[in-house]
Amino acid sequence: MHEGLILKITCPDKPGLVSRIATHVSAFQANLVEFKQFIERERGVFYARLEIDTASLEIPVDDFIASFDPLGREIEADWHFRRLPYRMRTAVLVTKTDHCLNEILWRTGLGEMPVEITSIIGNRDDCREIAENAGIPFHYIELGEDKEGGFRKIETLLEAQEVQLVVLARFMQIMPKWMCEKYQGRMINIHHSFLPAFIGANPYRQAYERGVKLIGATCHYVTGELDGGPIIEQEVERVQHHHSVRDLVRLGRDCERAALAKGIRYHVHDRTIIDADRAIVFPD
Amino acid sequence: MHEGLILKITCPDKPGLVSRIATHVSAFQANLVEFKQFIERERGVFYARLEIDTASLEIPVDDFIASFDPLGREIEADWHFRRLPYRMRTAVLVTKTDHCLNEILWRTGLGEMPVEITSIIGNRDDCREIAENAGIPFHYIELGEDKEGGFRKIETLLEAQEVQLVVLARFMQIMPKWMCEKYQGRMINIHHSFLPAFIGANPYRQAYERGVKLIGATCHYVTGELDGGPIIEQEVERVQHHHSVRDLVRLGRDCERAALAKGIRYHVHDRTIIDADRAIVFPD
Amino acid sequence: MHEGLILKITCPDKPGLVSRIATHVSAFQANLVEFKQFIERERGVFYARLEIDTASLEIPVDDFIASFDPLGREIEADWHFRRLPYRMRTAVLVTKTDHCLNEILWRTGLGEMPVEITSIIGNRDDCREIAENAGIPFHYIELGEDKEGGFRKIETLLEAQEVQLVVLARFMQIMPKWMCEKYQGRMINIHHSFLPAFIGANPYRQAYERGVKLIGATCHYVTGELDGGPIIEQEVERVQHHHSVRDLVRLGRDCERAALAKGIRYHVHDRTIIDADRAIVFPD
Amino acid sequence: MHEGLILKITCPDKPGLVSRIATHVSAFQANLVEFKQFIERERGVFYARLEIDTASLEIPVDDFIASFDPLGREIEADWHFRRLPYRMRTAVLVTKTDHCLNEILWRTGLGEMPVEITSIIGNRDDCREIAENAGIPFHYIELGEDKEGGFRKIETLLEAQEVQLVVLARFMQIMPKWMCEKYQGRMINIHHSFLPAFIGANPYRQAYERGVKLIGATCHYVTGELDGGPIIEQEVERVQHHHSVRDLVRLGRDCERAALAKGIRYHVHDRTIIDADRAIVFPD
Repeated sequence: MHEGLILKITCPDKPGLVSRIATHVSAFQANLVEFKQFIERERGVFYARLEIDTASLEIPVDDFIASFDPLGREIEADWHFRRLPYRMRTAVLVTKTDHCLNEILWRTGLGEMPVEITSIIGNRDDCREIAENAGIPFHYIELGEDKEGGFRKIETLLEAQEVQLVVLARFMQIMPKWMCEKYQGRMINIHHSFLPAFIGANPYRQAYERGVKLIGATCHYVTGELDGGPIIEQEVERVQHHHSVRDLVRLGRDCERAALAKGIRYHVHDRTIIDADRAIVFPD
Repeated sequence: MHEGLILKITCPDKPGLVSRIATHVSAFQANLVEFKQFIERERGVFYARLEIDTASLEIPVDDFIASFDPLGREIEADWHFRRLPYRMRTAVLVTKTDHCLNEILWRTGLGEMPVEITSIIGNRDDCREIAENAGIPFHYIELGEDKEGGFRKIETLLEAQEVQLVVLARFMQIMPKWMCEKYQGRMINIHHSFLPAFIGANPYRQAYERGVKLIGATCHYVTGELDGGPIIEQEVERVQHHHSVRDLVRLGRDCERAALAKGIRYHVHDRTIIDADRAIVFPD
Repeated sequence: MHEGLILKITCPDKPGLVSRIATHVSAFQANLVEFKQFIERERGVFYARLEIDTASLEIPVDDFIASFDPLGREIEADWHFRRLPYRMRTAVLVTKTDHCLNEILWRTGLGEMPVEITSIIGNRDDCREIAENAGIPFHYIELGEDKEGGFRKIETLLEAQEVQLVVLARFMQIMPKWMCEKYQGRMINIHHSFLPAFIGANPYRQAYERGVKLIGATCHYVTGELDGGPIIEQEVERVQHHHSVRDLVRLGRDCERAALAKGIRYHVHDRTIIDADRAIVFPD
Repeated sequence: MHEGLILKITCPDKPGLVSRIATHVSAFQANLVEFKQFIERERGVFYARLEIDTASLEIPVDDFIASFDPLGREIEADWHFRRLPYRMRTAVLVTKTDHCLNEILWRTGLGEMPVEITSIIGNRDDCREIAENAGIPFHYIELGEDKEGGFRKIETLLEAQEVQLVVLARFMQIMPKWMCEKYQGRMINIHHSFLPAFIGANPYRQAYERGVKLIGATCHYVTGELDGGPIIEQEVERVQHHHSVRDLVRLGRDCERAALAKGIRYHVHDRTIIDADRAIVFPD
């Protein structure tokens, strides 16, 4: 779909929601192309994601969006419209390793993900060349003694560029709480383990010492709790006793790339809805 | 959901279908619990599966079912209602190996699949003990010189038992065309290869000789074309050069069990819709 | 291989080990059918597993085994010969759920695993019928108020039956320390999570609440540390937000069956060597 | 291991081979670091791969290599020594899509694969920029009307650069028979299907129409038979009914990248031995 809308809805479950929502969409001759819904029974919450083709819409798209207000309020919903086509303004934060950054650049270049990378920000200079080859501004920001000041600089940059999504692509720093809060639901991290196993530093060393037979990577939203936010995607790879920590690092890179790329893809296509500590994901 | 309805719909795609269908369900205070739909764009076909809770339905369930007729005809749909709870009357056809039969019995016993096994039919006697241990009648039917007569006997038995689903659980016989036609969309086979690779006999020997690095199994609806019907599920397992044909047979059993069990599960939960040569599957 | 020997060796690494060991085997015209070795570099340990065909052996097998002593001592090895064919005398401990027990019985029946099940011991009576159908004695042993006394009874039974392997097939009791020690390296558990995530009780509930996208099962040797012993095998299955805890339990069963079956298989084929907290596994 | 030798051996199986080979290595104080062997029983063939640390070797490495000749001849072996460190001189042939090329460049840059890319050759100009960004000469060679002449030019280039390995990284041309023969065992292709399913053109379209539930990619040695050479590695990805051909292309790219990268890795680390129509692969 090239022109249209994505509508995400979260509201208390009650009978007739699908009918009411779909009927509203149809009333103005918009065409419902994809309808995904899920009812969380324990707490009685209704989640839905709609893809709407607006080619045959009888009223202006903005009016159509506004027309949803009464219904949205009546069903006590949180809802969000996204106009297509769009590209999400995204900053990528890196430290030293570049495989996750490379993957994002490659997929973005292919048009797999509607992402516009506004900047690549590093607390080391290692990824500068890759950024510049891709024609994207690279910002080196020191996070040494005045770490707080460094994060303020990052924040200023993100603000100036109107960044909608922050991707921590093997960014080896713990984000300050105020940034986690500000970018809640808009900051994605890749952790190099199969969470909740091996939280924190050196997960591959931990995995080696525990002698696991599968290693993994986890893409999740960042919250104030270390490696504790809602999980979007996880990948695993089989390993054996003869794999050294270095081998695990090598094999893990493929998990990290894959999990992060899928996680970003789901987010920018509005296929995720955060549900307290969990992420609803309607995969494509 | 313990009491309710499953509704499957196939019709030409047009705007407003979700609204009209959902609104019809809501009109009588039935509660739409799950709504899955898919639009096949190339040919413009709309597919949907609805789970409907009828606890609060204001009219008798049969009247509700009947009330769908005018809408169904208007949208030119093929549709099908299933009343829950139900158990699908199923016959399992076997020859010698018993792992697929065992798997079905085990999952049925656990309540994983709403299946009532009416009979186990073998053209050898090998599975008799398993059947009898499970308290299910075993019928030995010879398929030797008078093969056609044997299949007629099987058919008579299926008719007498009002069988709704026929499962070929490593039944090593090619079904006659008239049975394929009669049980179209109601006869499921497990083929011991990753179709369309290795059609026909001895697929593990074929796989060994080709030196593949993954073997598989395919659960599909039976049609008149050998190993050619719509695929419901496929599983694969990694293999290496040191695996003999016998090892492949052993490893393949796990693929066969898993693919067949999932295939049956999807079918009896009305999660499949046959779309010409392909199967739409709304997995759970 | 129907007649022969398996030799497992652990010793300090030094040059020439493969040559010396293989030459010893060849000296008496035994035929080395499979040679697997691994050198753990960090601590300098050499591990090997040999399959030896003794059909052409020039001396009695017992003499051949004895002839290894001087070499074994010289290279400061722990080593172990296993004469084939053999079947490992195995007790299976169960509580309520039977899927792991079923899997073991099925694979043993097929000859996939050289295991002789001496008894099935339950602290509930739920699995009695399955045991009796399989023609294996079932022992109900209460583990209520006098839990220690119950475990003593189990131990007496294992002793009387000369059990070589104890399998905890979803046995929902923590083993006493003295049993863990006595059966070190000979007691295998299946834990229903992807360890080290979700140690302890209700791992599927824990997994649900954490919102993981993959669930798993872990087969490991039992040590005094809860869910902390050397890992033999792990399996995972992909899950989504719509899976309830009950769905996770259902999907997890397949992981549990597969991981436990492989773990037992590796153990009884002498494909595992315990290396402190980790298990070396030479898979087939 | 930074300095040393890889030795690959294929010979008729007979008792004592491991002993004789390992003893020869030890005789000159070389240290056997890894020993992998496999006996193909049906035809009685012995395959082995040895990693030898030559740091403590008492004679020059060349003399050590030469010293193997009498033993090699006596056991009627094909054998091959590789001196480490080395980087395999590799040409990559491309047409339009660049994801496989990108993957090779990325992994080579990381040092994951000891490959020196001598040139990137395209029958279109699409990959020129990527090649030049990576600092590798790009050669455009037309394969239009005078196709045979074009392949002669490629061959001249490969000769001039003393290329040891030719990688067809989504090179959409059928290689002429004489090139297949000349580069037998040294030319690797990635086919975008799970061979032997969907040989030839448009495999994703074929897969879509057959309605498979898993798509795949196959890395194999090129022989004169189209998509028929020994398979080194295969990858699969799960798909569903709602995936269009375009989605399959997108998802398949990840299979292709992964299978090709592993295939090249195994080849350049001398972990493959071609055994008639199959490839023995000792994975790491």
